[in-house]
Amino acid sequence: MNTHEELTLARVALTWVAEPGTRSVHRLVDELGAVAALDLLLDGGAPQEQLRDTVAARSRAGDARAVAAEALGRADRLGVRVVIPGDDEWPTTVEHLRTLHLRDVRRRVDRETAPPLCFWVRGQWPLAEALDRSVAVIGARAATPYGTHIATELGYGLADRDWTVVSGGAFGIDAAAHRGALTAGGLTVAVLACGVDRSYPMGNAALFDRIADTGLLVSEWPPGAEPLRPRFLIRNRVIAAGTRGTVLVEAAARSGATQTTRRAIALHRPAMVVPGPVTSAMSVGAHELLREEPKARLVTGLAQVLEEVGRIGELAPVPRGPDRPTDLLDDEAGSIVEAMPRRGRVGVDALAARAGLPVRTVLRKLSMLEELALVVRRDDGYALVVPKNRP
Amino acid sequence: MNTHEELTLARVALTWVAEPGTRSVHRLVDELGAVAALDLLLDGGAPQEQLRDTVAARSRAGDARAVAAEALGRADRLGVRVVIPGDDEWPTTVEHLRTLHLRDVRRRVDRETAPPLCFWVRGQWPLAEALDRSVAVIGARAATPYGTHIATELGYGLADRDWTVVSGGAFGIDAAAHRGALTAGGLTVAVLACGVDRSYPMGNAALFDRIADTGLLVSEWPPGAEPLRPRFLIRNRVIAAGTRGTVLVEAAARSGATQTTRRAIALHRPAMVVPGPVTSAMSVGAHELLREEPKARLVTGLAQVLEEVGRIGELAPVPRGPDRPTDLLDDEAGSIVEAMPRRGRVGVDALAARAGLPVRTVLRKLSMLEELALVVRRDDGYALVVPKNRP
Repeated sequence: MNTHEELTLARVALTWVAEPGTRSVHRLVDELGAVAALDLLLDGGAPQEQLRDTVAARSRAGDARAVAAEALGRADRLGVRVVIPGDDEWPTTVEHLRTLHLRDVRRRVDRETAPPLCFWVRGQWPLAEALDRSVAVIGARAATPYGTHIATELGYGLADRDWTVVSGGAFGIDAAAHRGALTAGGLTVAVLACGVDRSYPMGNAALFDRIADTGLLVSEWPPGAEPLRPRFLIRNRVIAAGTRGTVLVEAAARSGATQTTRRAIALHRPAMVVPGPVTSAMSVGAHELLREEPKARLVTGLAQVLEEVGRIGELAPVPRGPDRPTDLLDDEAGSIVEAMPRRGRVGVDALAARAGLPVRTVLRKLSMLEELALVVRRDDGYALVVPKNRP
Repeated sequence: MNTHEELTLARVALTWVAEPGTRSVHRLVDELGAVAALDLLLDGGAPQEQLRDTVAARSRAGDARAVAAEALGRADRLGVRVVIPGDDEWPTTVEHLRTLHLRDVRRRVDRETAPPLCFWVRGQWPLAEALDRSVAVIGARAATPYGTHIATELGYGLADRDWTVVSGGAFGIDAAAHRGALTAGGLTVAVLACGVDRSYPMGNAALFDRIADTGLLVSEWPPGAEPLRPRFLIRNRVIAAGTRGTVLVEAAARSGATQTTRRAIALHRPAMVVPGPVTSAMSVGAHELLREEPKARLVTGLAQVLEEVGRIGELAPVPRGPDRPTDLLDDEAGSIVEAMPRRGRVGVDALAARAGLPVRTVLRKLSMLEELALVVRRDDGYALVVPKNRP
């Protein structure tokens, strides 16, 4: 049995010897486990010639295990954590990528869509929890004022209804969606195609800092990794798989954002598209999808987006006890409610100190308490919900 | 056997005793013929009580046959003709309304969608021929500059490709579509909800005169008839049935134009919808249709409209003889070709005089000659196609 550290190191090293999503690597990990799979590959034992060549080429550039160890050390110093399958905060939804089969596959990136081997995460929220109730809002970098307006409104509206807004951190639609969510005081996750310590694009540096403060920056590549062009397309499968649905706001013809939407369709996730003026080049991709993909759903605003993602059966009704909802709570959650001030707000750190629990646990339980409508999240902390105002 | 005059008078009278589209009246005409059906109804013999009441109420207002005779006399003085089934220029496509069945029928106008009993026509083109290769371009009166632009472009483009542009003569999208067709020197047909001698709306009076000069004004109601509110909705079924397809450009929620599109869908005609900004109230109806009607097809411009209407099997390939296309011509068409000047253009009247044929015959044959690419229509008349330029 390998230790968690060994598994993590092996998965990080595997991500380095072949780009994330490589199906042959993922299959080996499934069969042998990450540590044995890495050993086999580094010994030149890959069953496919192409993969053997790739590994050999990477090995000439450095020692995979040493590179991984260095990356982990660097991440630790930066406050970046690695998450791997089996961890509490691993988002199991991305495992659906096993079943992703795209039509008309011509490019490598459309074939190599295996689940991620690991995530690098910057920010306080547990990743799985942040993505649990999430919607992707994606689109063109060269967005028009129309698209920016729509993306901001959707980002705001989704966050305001306690949905996590997921996007790719790019200029244009992505940034507008993140900003809308931040303005609503909500949770937003940027899934990046480079290290979570890198501000790419530079112009969004302040935005990334704000996201890291209250939401999450997530990547399959280690700190320092460069935003190579193919990585944006590799990354897109995570946005499609990690969310409950994808909204495309504006896109040029055959753009990366339309590709994410096609992945969402192939994954049987609601794939929503906002139309625009037919005179706008930035809506050509949106209209193309609506014409070509019968599953693509035209949406004109927040209500219709909520209708689509709300349809999913997993959305359990909020449990509410007949008399005292606190009866439903486990010990930890109970301690947190006890530690909450009767009036006013409290920060997470102060609350953790008062309840005698780790910050991460407090964050997780607070999320559940919010679902139960026992606490409410404010800009500057959490407050108890006064029973008479409870829904 | 009734004479053509008797049949015409009976059909006109029937349109007066009950509004066009009334299914019970149409069924009686099918069973008994128009003359006997009229006799039965005026004798109080309608099988349905509601229809008996309607006829009785109308009969108190006047004598149906006298009213019809007066309308026919007035039409004659105004140069307006009546067309009835069996006439050469009767557009048989409207007979498809027999099979029209709408879902969720609550309103009278959605139930009473029988084929027209007669058409009043102003303009030179034979009605059936004008509608043969036609596309409806419809939409909101309160169109935005965006919608007006799109409708004008579509009207122009369709006319430029020798499609007749059909619309309802209203402000906004309708007028823009008609104007676009006129600008291209093409054929446009306004299907009105009042007499073809009335300019409603007044602001479109000059437009109606231009349409009557080169295209057609058509109505189910006699000259002088008022544009009563329900008549616009009754009229819409003719726009849907008389064309090869319908393009909705802009529409408010649940508007008359969306209703026409739903009729086109129910008639299995291509029903096309141009999307717009989701921020525009004038695109709400368009987006509603695209969301609710799986058969509604999003189109972004002329090419996609042509693709939809061009799919129809009826679109026979242009017949072309191996050596001399004139071999295919009948005597009348042959005389017309002989009468054409070798160079330059000739007006229809001058051509009719030279060929010794009635103007209407010349117009009909010219249309065929155009299809055969033997003559070409210009703003100021017709010209022979020089063989080497022939497609």
